[in-house]
Amino acid sequence: MTPDEFRRYGREVVDWIADYYERIETFPVLSQVQPGDIRAQLPADPPEQGEPFEALLADLDRVILPGITHWQHPSYFAYFSANASGPAILGDLLASGLGVQGMLWSTSPAATELETHVLDWLATLLGLPERFSSGGPGGGVIQHSASDAALVALLAALHRVSGGRTEREGVASGRFAVYTSAQTHSSVEKACRIAGLGADALRKLDVDPVTLAARPEHLRELIERDVAEGVTPALVVASVGATGTGSVDPVRELATIAHETGAWLHVDAAWAGVAAVADEFRWLNDGVELADSYCTNPHKWLLTNFDCTAFWVADRAALVGALSILPEYLRNAATDAGAVIDYRDWHVPLGRRFRALKLWAVLRWYGAEGLREHIRSGVGLAQEFARLVASDDRFELVAPHPLSLVTFRLRAGDEATRAVMDTVNASGALFLTHTVVGGRTVLRFVVVSPQTERRHVLAAWDALRAAVPAG
Amino acid sequence: MTPDEFRRYGREVVDWIADYYERIETFPVLSQVQPGDIRAQLPADPPEQGEPFEALLADLDRVILPGITHWQHPSYFAYFSANASGPAILGDLLASGLGVQGMLWSTSPAATELETHVLDWLATLLGLPERFSSGGPGGGVIQHSASDAALVALLAALHRVSGGRTEREGVASGRFAVYTSAQTHSSVEKACRIAGLGADALRKLDVDPVTLAARPEHLRELIERDVAEGVTPALVVASVGATGTGSVDPVRELATIAHETGAWLHVDAAWAGVAAVADEFRWLNDGVELADSYCTNPHKWLLTNFDCTAFWVADRAALVGALSILPEYLRNAATDAGAVIDYRDWHVPLGRRFRALKLWAVLRWYGAEGLREHIRSGVGLAQEFARLVASDDRFELVAPHPLSLVTFRLRAGDEATRAVMDTVNASGALFLTHTVVGGRTVLRFVVVSPQTERRHVLAAWDALRAAVPAG
Repeated sequence: MTPDEFRRYGREVVDWIADYYERIETFPVLSQVQPGDIRAQLPADPPEQGEPFEALLADLDRVILPGITHWQHPSYFAYFSANASGPAILGDLLASGLGVQGMLWSTSPAATELETHVLDWLATLLGLPERFSSGGPGGGVIQHSASDAALVALLAALHRVSGGRTEREGVASGRFAVYTSAQTHSSVEKACRIAGLGADALRKLDVDPVTLAARPEHLRELIERDVAEGVTPALVVASVGATGTGSVDPVRELATIAHETGAWLHVDAAWAGVAAVADEFRWLNDGVELADSYCTNPHKWLLTNFDCTAFWVADRAALVGALSILPEYLRNAATDAGAVIDYRDWHVPLGRRFRALKLWAVLRWYGAEGLREHIRSGVGLAQEFARLVASDDRFELVAPHPLSLVTFRLRAGDEATRAVMDTVNASGALFLTHTVVGGRTVLRFVVVSPQTERRHVLAAWDALRAAVPAG
Repeated sequence: MTPDEFRRYGREVVDWIADYYERIETFPVLSQVQPGDIRAQLPADPPEQGEPFEALLADLDRVILPGITHWQHPSYFAYFSANASGPAILGDLLASGLGVQGMLWSTSPAATELETHVLDWLATLLGLPERFSSGGPGGGVIQHSASDAALVALLAALHRVSGGRTEREGVASGRFAVYTSAQTHSSVEKACRIAGLGADALRKLDVDPVTLAARPEHLRELIERDVAEGVTPALVVASVGATGTGSVDPVRELATIAHETGAWLHVDAAWAGVAAVADEFRWLNDGVELADSYCTNPHKWLLTNFDCTAFWVADRAALVGALSILPEYLRNAATDAGAVIDYRDWHVPLGRRFRALKLWAVLRWYGAEGLREHIRSGVGLAQEFARLVASDDRFELVAPHPLSLVTFRLRAGDEATRAVMDTVNASGALFLTHTVVGGRTVLRFVVVSPQTERRHVLAAWDALRAAVPAG
């Protein structure tokens, strides 16, 4: 494709995306296709000759769009959304166009230095402790996902707690345990399995029945039992805004207990952490100054399209120690001099996109003021939704909801709750998902999209009420 | 950013990229900045108020470009490049714009089904064995990198060889070993460390002194020794186009030996594998019909911008068994019915971009014919370069070079060889990198960019000759 063809088709794609956002409300939020419907419309064999770009755009509308669940739709209230924004999309486009691969500082110094810099900026914006700044022994990096962040936190923890023995001898050099709340994301169990500890190494902490936060006393009990049996506590993962209900663990207490035995304290604030950009949510950072690592996802609630997980460590030496391997073909003067960061040693992959560009674009386009406004809008709409739920005695709220996630259910029980969800999702008018809390089915309503306005929340509530089974 | 603002700035960014490719030869290939130079030009604090998008574009030129090592430059001959193309960049832009997250089939059925489909297409284009097709028990998925592919291959291997015990008990449930050529990419050692085996579990196979391919007899010896000592062979990684010199391991023999003891055979063809799109390079697939998994990177040599590693397994059950965890909040009817692929269970992260769009765009824009032409161009230019090297008796070729990587050195020794590399890299006229083979410094010259023409190769050779130290 020549530069002139790129100009022409590039404009068409830009217009296609702008049109998409203008007409997004005309689509059912949740795709209505059945398994196999999309593939049935694609040719069995790849094309022998090249095709015009117009053919792709036509198939995008005809074949692909019916199979899209519209994550950017203003009535998408499911999971934790992955919100995008214009500056993020364009920052990412610049990264694709430049096409550089920042595995080493020397393979594009700006890719590394901008990433370090914008993660310092983001730490400042969120009021994170100084220990995560790159000016000292810590620093930040962009990971693909919070699952990757949990995994590399575990690897760094094992490296530190074993005195580096796991690097050569692996995890059979000891018996290790990992602790997290029973409310926590499956990423911690997945990390245990990937890192070779197995699911049996994971200890699930009991939670407070009202706040659903992990109980520190239970952590202490479990650690004492493990230590007595010769098991080494390696990692404690505290959730700030757990996936199911948004519960916030007592980071300070958990960190204190973890550190008494030398375990690493990782804070997973994937969805909620970015809310600390607004002063009134700085309480989310309570105790984080004791954490060894911290992650939050601008791709969830800070206007940056997937993937962009911000991950910081207080001591980058443990992380790099766990992951660094330097074959001859990657050696270069800057690395040998030790004067630079080589981000390949901070995560699983070797190669890496220039993802800092999109985060830079977001932070500059919105500024701190714009980011605060975005967070406040989501929280405000979620609080309004919660008031509506509370006002209808057929419904009940389930857990504290200080941010943009509201959990609720029908008093009539699990079956009625599921029925309401299935009805509204099948309608295409909105999309929300469920979880189970204390054995009961609970619906989750999340507002993080910059597209979502008050009218969408009110319409969602009307649809939910209308879907309540009679009787 | 409103849709109309997006149209406006989107056009500016598209034009910026088109201009970039038109003027790319005006930049030094290897960035000439010193550590800290880029950060020194960035404001210490993030902006309080939002800034116009023009400010970002201005800083892109002023601050970022000097810190870019231009991977898309026609005179970039370093590492294995990460080539981009217009259709790939625009396909990726569409993915950013749609902003869907395909962790589950239900979270955007088209994202999953298109990915499965284009990986079937790519397997067809490369002549890969039927066992990797999604029509049977196998199938393909896009991973971030070949390092991720090696890691998940190891996890699947451990799951299978342990009869699923590693899932709960971890790798301490046995003693496991992994085998690969001494020429192989550091990703295999990194995978061993991440998966909790530690570097000691890695056995490096001796290589043939001429072809630099792994010696099957040595694999047999090592496996017999391990089995005798109660160690379970878990994984053998065969390289088809190893990173250092492009050596090709005897996949058939290695697979046969691996399977005698129940070990998994993974083929890492990250750079070279895509060459099989042309009939004359189908020999690269010899023995691959015996492999349990296979990966090749369209982001290296098939015109698809980073990241896009194509990874196939012959038996997806082992992979999913190793990685699947289904918390309540991810349950849905399609998954419960078992009728669909949920790609979250095929890799480390939970969330995932719609990366199939860019690969679809590439396969359709170029067609099989265009892809073959691209591969043949790279190989042809590399062969011409090799002839030039052979014609100058101050230089010598080091290893077989049937594809687009040529390894060579100065007969005058390591110091002279390094000096030539340092001189041409510092000039900015081209960029190439080195490795060490048999204790000797060797230069690597890789031609994979669609931008590279004959004149760039000839100019590179002239620059290399001119840089030879006198005497």
